[in-house]
Amino acid sequence: METKGIDRELEDEMEFIIDRNLILAALLDVSLAVSTKDTIPILKGIKMEVFDDKIILTGGNQVSIIKKIIKGPAVSIIQTGSTVLEARFLVGLVRKLENDLHVKSISGSIVVRSGEVETTFHGMDPAEYPKLHDSEAGSEMVLTIEKLKEIILQTGFAAAINDARPVLTGCHWRFKNRILTCAATDSQRMAMRKIDIESDLNRVANIPTASLSKLLKLLPKQAGNVNIQISDSFILFKTPDFELYSLLITGSYPQIDRLIPTGISTEITLNRKTLENALDRMNIISNHHKHHDVRLSICNGEVIELSTIAYELGKMVQKIMPNEIQGKKELDITFDSIFMLEAVKSIQDAQLKLSFYGENKPIVVESTAGNDQLSLISSVRTK
Amino acid sequence: METKGIDRELEDEMEFIIDRNLILAALLDVSLAVSTKDTIPILKGIKMEVFDDKIILTGGNQVSIIKKIIKGPAVSIIQTGSTVLEARFLVGLVRKLENDLHVKSISGSIVVRSGEVETTFHGMDPAEYPKLHDSEAGSEMVLTIEKLKEIILQTGFAAAINDARPVLTGCHWRFKNRILTCAATDSQRMAMRKIDIESDLNRVANIPTASLSKLLKLLPKQAGNVNIQISDSFILFKTPDFELYSLLITGSYPQIDRLIPTGISTEITLNRKTLENALDRMNIISNHHKHHDVRLSICNGEVIELSTIAYELGKMVQKIMPNEIQGKKELDITFDSIFMLEAVKSIQDAQLKLSFYGENKPIVVESTAGNDQLSLISSVRTK
Repeated sequence: METKGIDRELEDEMEFIIDRNLILAALLDVSLAVSTKDTIPILKGIKMEVFDDKIILTGGNQVSIIKKIIKGPAVSIIQTGSTVLEARFLVGLVRKLENDLHVKSISGSIVVRSGEVETTFHGMDPAEYPKLHDSEAGSEMVLTIEKLKEIILQTGFAAAINDARPVLTGCHWRFKNRILTCAATDSQRMAMRKIDIESDLNRVANIPTASLSKLLKLLPKQAGNVNIQISDSFILFKTPDFELYSLLITGSYPQIDRLIPTGISTEITLNRKTLENALDRMNIISNHHKHHDVRLSICNGEVIELSTIAYELGKMVQKIMPNEIQGKKELDITFDSIFMLEAVKSIQDAQLKLSFYGENKPIVVESTAGNDQLSLISSVRTK
Repeated sequence: METKGIDRELEDEMEFIIDRNLILAALLDVSLAVSTKDTIPILKGIKMEVFDDKIILTGGNQVSIIKKIIKGPAVSIIQTGSTVLEARFLVGLVRKLENDLHVKSISGSIVVRSGEVETTFHGMDPAEYPKLHDSEAGSEMVLTIEKLKEIILQTGFAAAINDARPVLTGCHWRFKNRILTCAATDSQRMAMRKIDIESDLNRVANIPTASLSKLLKLLPKQAGNVNIQISDSFILFKTPDFELYSLLITGSYPQIDRLIPTGISTEITLNRKTLENALDRMNIISNHHKHHDVRLSICNGEVIELSTIAYELGKMVQKIMPNEIQGKKELDITFDSIFMLEAVKSIQDAQLKLSFYGENKPIVVESTAGNDQLSLISSVRTK
């Protein structure tokens, strides 16, 4: 029998034997897209399609769909077919099994044998499972796994959590002049990363941050490429092992470049890890403030002092010796320590640069390696 | 200056230097007894008493109190004194510090210096911290750490969670004829363990299971002895490192011995781990029933069959070959798989014995090693 496509009709009488660890890993991956609270009952299930040469597992919600393609010597296919099984029960079962799984469909029920354990499921009708509307062909491009991880980790944290403005819950990707600019902002802070691409693609896409978080979990540790297809309504990430399909968020995105202030007054270069540890510690006290207020000032023109106070609790002060202070050697500015900490953590180099543009102006956090990455956080007005 | 006792008045001007890991471990231990929701504000704090030769940390709630005694070369005491500091903030801070702590009381505030970090706390008045009413002298006895862990682990799981009958939330310890009988029951199941003791103590005590759980966490991995003092109202567990004081639960406890049925009809000996894994797996389906129904039957007079079914989900069947079946070779009984699993897990030997006394009668789970340990679980009526 020949594989014609992943959405073709298959017989109901499927049967296969598979390694327990192999199917468990694949089930956990597709489960990333399955919500047990989904209002559409069949979306609480995982679709299992058995072809001559592979098994495809599919899990999805109303925004994203994950497919895993299982092949190789650890799978032995006896009869093609398809079914949909309740995800939570299926994953719970496979976790507790100890031996190879022998899966067989018997008049609508799915029987899973593993060692001395025999479990019978009620399958759901695979014909009811939603199909992808992939009639709309997207533009294609390729990114390495490494770059893809980088741009998501360096921007995604700044996206909005609450969906008062839905477009801000996404990451904004702009493909133009062979540069991909990725940005995210929740309107209190912004993170941006630019990378060179080998594609003449010219479009923008607002990708749900939740879909990108799932992608991060799916991406393997090994080096490799990810094929990306984008249309006006969806984005598809594809490797030989998996596919992640996500709808895009409609709406116009803020003009990112206009957020970056001009006219630096002070520039401080310092050790990233020292600042990260200090902010993490300050947060024990600063989290008693709505905006996690931490104050940064320059003492005697040469030492950085971070401080935070919560009247009912106490106060914390830490001095940090910077590598260099350029420009005005006086500074007294308050910022959100959580926002600053996330910005600092997104930088991978040992050193970072903080740029200040005056009281009540945003602060820019950059790597000193000049890799086209920056974060911007609002200062907190204390008067 | 001489140490006169842990509750004497100390000056307010304390000062000491201590290893960060040492104080963190002690703070985490005393925190076991601190509830951040306690209605008495000072009980949200940890009392810190600095003597010439040791530091005592105390944390408590309205039922139990934990004291840790810190001594040795990793502490350097400069000035004795005492204070009470908010537990959550103090523990949160010490977790994030990286160097030795230099703690000093300055006019009511406590200043903690660690490397470049200086934190100032508002101390609470140590005179307000509740004192132990230890005027009532208790009877004393000694148990090894190993035995103490065993008896708690083998019985505590069967105590009631909800406090409809407060006495059932405790573990019942009966000292009589140089035997300590420990029991717990939530009225659906019971667990019991007897050990020989070298004491002529003759009394009963209903110890809050929550206090025994804290004790388990405090007990070190190394061998050693625990000194136990019991009175009518409290129990005190004491080692050179810590003290755990707990009020007892008043009320009369059910007559444990009368719960054990007589007239065994069938006795099955089987591998403990095989049964444990099977029950754990069955629970994926049985937890859809209020009583986690799992049915056990004997097939062809020689094989055990476990099965469970949830109509909306599916069913699971597993056959287990027992080592031996004695008595009647027919059996069909339903029980709570969670209760059975916890009873099975409490047994440390490779083999266990299940004793059946007839339909709708309790089932007794015992080690085959005959170590005076048993669990009893009610059968579930299915008709």
